[in-house]
Amino acid sequence: MNDIKYANKLTNLGTETAFAVSEDASNHASKGNQVFPFHLGDINISTPRNIIEATKKAMHDQKTGYVPANGIPQLRDTIAETIGLQRNVSYNRENIVVQPGGKPVIPKFINTFMNPGDGVLYPNPGYPIYESQIEYNQGKALPYRYIHSKDGFIIDREHFESMIDEKTKILIYNNYQNPIGGDSTDEEMEWIANIAKKNNLWVLSDEAYFNIQFSGKPKSIVSISGMKERTVILYTFSKTYAMTGWRLGAAIGPKKIMKIFSKLGTNDESCTNHFIQYGGIEALSGNQEGAQEILQRLKDRRDILSHNLNKIDGIKLSIPNSTFYLFPEITEIFKKMNVESYEDFRKKTLLKTGVSFCTREHFGKPIDGESKKYIRFAFSGISKNHINKGMQQLKNYWSSL
Amino acid sequence: MNDIKYANKLTNLGTETAFAVSEDASNHASKGNQVFPFHLGDINISTPRNIIEATKKAMHDQKTGYVPANGIPQLRDTIAETIGLQRNVSYNRENIVVQPGGKPVIPKFINTFMNPGDGVLYPNPGYPIYESQIEYNQGKALPYRYIHSKDGFIIDREHFESMIDEKTKILIYNNYQNPIGGDSTDEEMEWIANIAKKNNLWVLSDEAYFNIQFSGKPKSIVSISGMKERTVILYTFSKTYAMTGWRLGAAIGPKKIMKIFSKLGTNDESCTNHFIQYGGIEALSGNQEGAQEILQRLKDRRDILSHNLNKIDGIKLSIPNSTFYLFPEITEIFKKMNVESYEDFRKKTLLKTGVSFCTREHFGKPIDGESKKYIRFAFSGISKNHINKGMQQLKNYWSSL
Repeated sequence: MNDIKYANKLTNLGTETAFAVSEDASNHASKGNQVFPFHLGDINISTPRNIIEATKKAMHDQKTGYVPANGIPQLRDTIAETIGLQRNVSYNRENIVVQPGGKPVIPKFINTFMNPGDGVLYPNPGYPIYESQIEYNQGKALPYRYIHSKDGFIIDREHFESMIDEKTKILIYNNYQNPIGGDSTDEEMEWIANIAKKNNLWVLSDEAYFNIQFSGKPKSIVSISGMKERTVILYTFSKTYAMTGWRLGAAIGPKKIMKIFSKLGTNDESCTNHFIQYGGIEALSGNQEGAQEILQRLKDRRDILSHNLNKIDGIKLSIPNSTFYLFPEITEIFKKMNVESYEDFRKKTLLKTGVSFCTREHFGKPIDGESKKYIRFAFSGISKNHINKGMQQLKNYWSSL
Repeated sequence: MNDIKYANKLTNLGTETAFAVSEDASNHASKGNQVFPFHLGDINISTPRNIIEATKKAMHDQKTGYVPANGIPQLRDTIAETIGLQRNVSYNRENIVVQPGGKPVIPKFINTFMNPGDGVLYPNPGYPIYESQIEYNQGKALPYRYIHSKDGFIIDREHFESMIDEKTKILIYNNYQNPIGGDSTDEEMEWIANIAKKNNLWVLSDEAYFNIQFSGKPKSIVSISGMKERTVILYTFSKTYAMTGWRLGAAIGPKKIMKIFSKLGTNDESCTNHFIQYGGIEALSGNQEGAQEILQRLKDRRDILSHNLNKIDGIKLSIPNSTFYLFPEITEIFKKMNVESYEDFRKKTLLKTGVSFCTREHFGKPIDGESKKYIRFAFSGISKNHINKGMQQLKNYWSSL
């Protein structure tokens, strides 16, 4: 039993390497050091009370048996109405398949449209599970990159278009983007929509951060003519309502595609937890004060963190209007620190300051020719007070180099 | 956008066709008819109170954020201890990966060991998702069959062995079996274990009904020497604690394999709902009166149902000691009813009597040469009173043929 022969495709399975960062942070803390956790994509804010109460009531009302793989009808109706209204399009129950989180939408989407060898465009730096699922399922990974300008991050259009050929099948688009925090101008979104239509691509629109907007109104690619028909939205309750550990989300898309998602759900997970779906109804249709408070607290943290970072020499920062991440360029500091790798940079900084963060490498393999260095600060899992203290440590250390 | 080109492998995806039976039953009821639901694999009994209270407490204690993909350490410890003790083997935390239900263990197991073209032995009649997942993932489906003797259902050994060749990689074993309710003698289980060892097969032991025993003690194949090393147990809270809609289960197996399951979990679902994992701890380590009451109620129903069925001419019934299903042979009645197919038999009986059930066809494609006809009665979703009433209808109709 010593040399186990696993399935061949496992060799292509990636993961979220950021978990190693959590482990380093824990080890550092266990030696009696203070750690400032900027690596967490989790939220240290409570789920709003009314959502918890609605879920408790559902448990008491014996909502504990199986439900259809696509979810309870009332939640599907509520999602269709709310998400359609926010995006200026019309959805109904048949466009919705409730999911145990937003993430399960990614493999379902890829497995619905991609054959081995088909090309999939996806953002890099980007959420690492895109790349992992594409390569695991034997697709051709086509990472598209960004240009960091004074107006923030914009998609490198020439590079993007150069990757498309007749085998390209899928485009993953994550507006309000993790980790860079970037969002498209209307013009950029139109350009992407045209590319999708011209090349007959299926679009996965990852809208996890759609409702995390510090000013103005968000826009979805489905609102552009001809896009709703070729797009599946990844929707999640995780960020807007601080429900990461609940595992509640939805796929939203054309009726025919949702029938396939439902069948894949019957095969993979039977259904999503029954009683938390009532929490989902309350989240979307009940009092929104909880969500507003979460958003206000995140905004305060963003302002404090960006104010602090901007005071450190050698940091180039765009301040995003969405997500709970900052993605500063730290090329000069990297050089001064005289380290070999991103990992050395991250670990040495943690040891010297207690400040823990992810680097560009945790969000996909760096693209050839990349010379600038970036790191990611998440401010969803750390209080204002600790942001200030951690930044002071960081400034002291990096200024002393 | 009219002729959508889906991924090729979707053509091999099956499903649980029993959902069509539920739909027929609903339609019949909506016309004002009484329906006696013997088709449901769900349980119409409440989850024990102490489990609900522990879950509510966890929600209040803000157990609402992400947890590791393999589950919270306390639940993994509790599962390792309880499940090891009940099966006479030693497990620890590293042998446990918490899952959102028992079902997700099936695709994870298949995707860990099977390459396209590899053979997978699985029971037929059996849980339909085995066949669907094998064929979807391009394995070679090797359905093994049962012989119905006066002592119940026994595996057809000659047929079983005739299917094994050097490409055979996996054996799915569902002792305390859905739908036939059969269980192996010690001698049969030893024989299976020897086959697995001799042919170097990986074993998925689906133990969903392990704790639903109306007398005596259950036995797991992992307790046989040399088997723990090559077996992954599918564990679920669904049946024992009436928690079907909670979606809480676990994979239990060798440490190395569990690392892969954990990585697959990170890719597919991030983690299992956080606060219900505290409900799982209470289920296993708290007061067991709730589970005992569920078992007693199921036993009463089994006794009433089998008593009634045995009074109907033309029914040949083995009374199982486990599961909540009866799987009578109804060949003679089938002939008398003068129908063309199982579906006609089922639908005509529903129309005439309101009694709704699944047939042999809902549990895998019938094997060549099968001449006897079987149907499945589930007694988990129907009260004693309605069992009696439904059986009276059935007796009246079938006796009148």
